[in-house]
Amino acid sequence: MKRVLVTGAGGFVGQGLVQRLLQQPGLEQLVAVDRQLDAQALPWLRDRRVRAVAGDFAAPATLQQALAQPPDGVFHLASLPGSRAEALPDGGMAVNLLATAALWQRLAELPGPPARVVFASSIAVYGALPMEPAMHEDQPTQPLLSYGAHKRMAEILLADLSRRGGVDGLSLRLPGIVARPPSPTGHGSAFMSDLLHRLSAGEAYVCPVGPDARAWWMSLACCVDNLLHAAAIPPARLAPARVVQLPALTATVGEVVQAIAQRHGARAGRVDYRPDAQTEQHFGRFPVLHAPQAEALGFRHDGGLDALLRRAVP
Amino acid sequence: MKRVLVTGAGGFVGQGLVQRLLQQPGLEQLVAVDRQLDAQALPWLRDRRVRAVAGDFAAPATLQQALAQPPDGVFHLASLPGSRAEALPDGGMAVNLLATAALWQRLAELPGPPARVVFASSIAVYGALPMEPAMHEDQPTQPLLSYGAHKRMAEILLADLSRRGGVDGLSLRLPGIVARPPSPTGHGSAFMSDLLHRLSAGEAYVCPVGPDARAWWMSLACCVDNLLHAAAIPPARLAPARVVQLPALTATVGEVVQAIAQRHGARAGRVDYRPDAQTEQHFGRFPVLHAPQAEALGFRHDGGLDALLRRAVP
Repeated sequence: MKRVLVTGAGGFVGQGLVQRLLQQPGLEQLVAVDRQLDAQALPWLRDRRVRAVAGDFAAPATLQQALAQPPDGVFHLASLPGSRAEALPDGGMAVNLLATAALWQRLAELPGPPARVVFASSIAVYGALPMEPAMHEDQPTQPLLSYGAHKRMAEILLADLSRRGGVDGLSLRLPGIVARPPSPTGHGSAFMSDLLHRLSAGEAYVCPVGPDARAWWMSLACCVDNLLHAAAIPPARLAPARVVQLPALTATVGEVVQAIAQRHGARAGRVDYRPDAQTEQHFGRFPVLHAPQAEALGFRHDGGLDALLRRAVP
Repeated sequence: MKRVLVTGAGGFVGQGLVQRLLQQPGLEQLVAVDRQLDAQALPWLRDRRVRAVAGDFAAPATLQQALAQPPDGVFHLASLPGSRAEALPDGGMAVNLLATAALWQRLAELPGPPARVVFASSIAVYGALPMEPAMHEDQPTQPLLSYGAHKRMAEILLADLSRRGGVDGLSLRLPGIVARPPSPTGHGSAFMSDLLHRLSAGEAYVCPVGPDARAWWMSLACCVDNLLHAAAIPPARLAPARVVQLPALTATVGEVVQAIAQRHGARAGRVDYRPDAQTEQHFGRFPVLHAPQAEALGFRHDGGLDALLRRAVP
């Protein structure tokens, strides 16, 4: 990819992705779109290949600026996250569905070969995960929140636009990515990141799920590996649904706490379990994930808790 | 239902529905929306309970007129049909997804209890039907055309808006409804209606599928029965997906031709089979449909070919 567009470039995943993209040989232009792009906080904005477009990606003027030169690769990461979208239904609809659709429709109208569009979808599309000990990547979707409903709708749209040939899309269903910065972003799975940060820093942490709570874990570095990999897969290898469930490392909170303790010894912080029923229900009952199709396409999880911690809380 | 809104009221299904609604006791107002509503062709427009709103249901002015008095029941039938939507992708997106979403969002904002919204979805959501001899109503969806993709997206949206409480929706997946008037409407299954009309009228018919082609059949009267039934089911009986696959009578074209011959004897027209591979593929390989959940909710197909013909080509 020579000319890349990244929406949500100022976000947690976006920043990680942009920095890795700038290390890719052959990259000529990177258009970074986000509502705010602060050159103080984001030193990579000064790279001469980066063109910053600050604004709502849904706004026609922003879109026009962002697409002034047709990109050959697009990473669409911008979204209104789960709990915020649930609190602001019109906002969630506007960003996660309507603006997303408008971006892709505009891309489909551009001249030249269709751009590879990598879309950050979410495991929220499944709704309640099965209570069985294992889950397959073909699990039917039944979103429980508007966020997941809009993500699923967008996946279907991207597959249809790809079938028509206007874009060449691929939706990646992302698990919770760790370790996000502590500021509240509206992600319900924030406790996973908070746990890693606090205990690794030797601080105490009051955990809203118990030690047996089981979740899917992926470091930012691993997520970026997968996003970059998604950009390079030949279209002929993609099934018509154009959806990939990323493999994810399944581990209990207790196992993660133990791995941190082994890594940091006496310097690791102590955890105080005070399980909250709702958090446990939504984020603490994940089955083991089987994703053989995703693995055959070359997608990977972190491999183990040691690697996860090394990459997530270096 | 006292105050009902019908979009696509001038269409084949819409006209049948409106005429039956006007026979329902207690109906006080029926707002009929369609791009064109011709009082010459549609005598029921003169019923004092009918308020005609001619215009694109997507246009804000039309919406405002249509919703001047909050309805307690909505039948959303308006769509750009399959092959037209495929030829006009922006048009299909605008009508089948965006305008549909706008209508429901406006409904969700109205004061009072949520309106029951009955949405005419389509079996196009499935894409290629399984080659097995039988198919279950829980068949996963994998739309092959934009029409089906947009219908599936709208189903997901309606379920989410219903979960939030703004509307009280139910998507019915309709099979091809017979016997449509001969004018081309963009429905790929038009040959089913043409076959019934021609042979019943004693005319010859060149059939684009062979006698072994198997399809799902439903008369307009049966379809309207199901639409009215959908309006009356208590919300507590509906699953969270808020989707029902209507039962459908499965029969081969040869069986239908034989039933017409038995009914009309020597006056029945002759059929000349000239199978077209694509039509066979899309509309001639339907498995037998099992829809026990829909049947448990009280939805029905025509019951048999005699009843189908009696109701479809009286």
